[in-house]
Amino acid sequence: MKISARNALPGTIVAIKKGATTAHVTLDVAGIKITASITNEAVDDLGLVVGGTATAIVKASDVLIAVA
Amino acid sequence: MKISARNALPGTIVAIKKGATTAHVTLDVAGIKITASITNEAVDDLGLVVGGTATAIVKASDVLIAVA
Amino acid sequence: MKISARNALPGTIVAIKKGATTAHVTLDVAGIKITASITNEAVDDLGLVVGGTATAIVKASDVLIAVA
Amino acid sequence: MKISARNALPGTIVAIKKGATTAHVTLDVAGIKITASITNEAVDDLGLVVGGTATAIVKASDVLIAVA
Amino acid sequence: MKISARNALPGTIVAIKKGATTAHVTLDVAGIKITASITNEAVDDLGLVVGGTATAIVKASDVLIAVA
Amino acid sequence: MKISARNALPGTIVAIKKGATTAHVTLDVAGIKITASITNEAVDDLGLVVGGTATAIVKASDVLIAVA
Repeated sequence: MKISARNALPGTIVAIKKGATTAHVTLDVAGIKITASITNEAVDDLGLVVGGTATAIVKASDVLIAVA
Repeated sequence: MKISARNALPGTIVAIKKGATTAHVTLDVAGIKITASITNEAVDDLGLVVGGTATAIVKASDVLIAVA
Repeated sequence: MKISARNALPGTIVAIKKGATTAHVTLDVAGIKITASITNEAVDDLGLVVGGTATAIVKASDVLIAVA
Repeated sequence: MKISARNALPGTIVAIKKGATTAHVTLDVAGIKITASITNEAVDDLGLVVGGTATAIVKASDVLIAVA
Repeated sequence: MKISARNALPGTIVAIKKGATTAHVTLDVAGIKITASITNEAVDDLGLVVGGTATAIVKASDVLIAVA
Repeated sequence: MKISARNALPGTIVAIKKGATTAHVTLDVAGIKITASITNEAVDDLGLVVGGTATAIVKASDVLIAVA
């Protein structure tokens, strides 16, 4: 599957924290930590486990830019 | 300034492409390309130029996860 | 590829309108029109054409609910 | 009220799952399931109940496109 | 129509700038400027004009918080 | 730090409600209530407390417009 989002960042899952309905999944992408907030169903549906590989996907319109 | 977004990815600006109202700004973050879609005013307001440093900021709720 | 977004709506591309940097792509999903705003590069990268099949993907946190 | 979002999908509420602060509301839209992640207050404020009618609203810039 | 978004900010339209596909609409909300990026079709569809009244709607999950 | 988001609304924190992973933070901005949905970590990381000052930041592409 190819997707329109301009940012696809492959990495390794280093943490999964489930809440009541929402889970926080953190990937290590080339030494950079990226955290996603997804549904608990998605964690189970995708079979996500710490140590597994996954890709963080971000639409360009959801990226802000900051300068010092 | 500290910000609530969980993802702050510092990098170098490698491309800026302006449209009629919207610009695409691409950063190199530790070898990974990240593209933001922001307003032309923001590019001018922040004084963004190719070769400059900037940080890509992404809210955790805007990150999707995919697995092969 | 499996993705964490809870909404995956397969349909047929019925319109593609490119701007300077941003394109509007409309799908017919079981008789319902769904419009996406994506980058021109994504249209070319995915080889999108009117009449082709594609899936509209929406994160649950990006869906609002309204009642009359 | 008319709204700028390009996608307004009327349907029937088939499931409501409340967490600590966030609820998942699923609509059946012409046979397609669409899930929204909204606040618990919004569920109560709008009086959402299973079997009731509601409209899923999605901004075009929040829709991704994928192809096989 | 009632909507699940927690932020509804009524104001007066003070500027409309159309691009090729995307328009920037600025409202004055109790002395605060709020800018929306919506489609050109939405501007026409809603009959937006400078001086007219409108409401800026923002989902809680799309608001970031920053501190000095 | 300067940020690309077009909307920066300074105000006073009037409420903080933490869930399992997600917190709702409400600001009073010139008499207008604005609610953000951010992670519990962000609340702690930024040291947010009721009565403190903070800025609500919203990307233009995350603002919808509605008319009566």
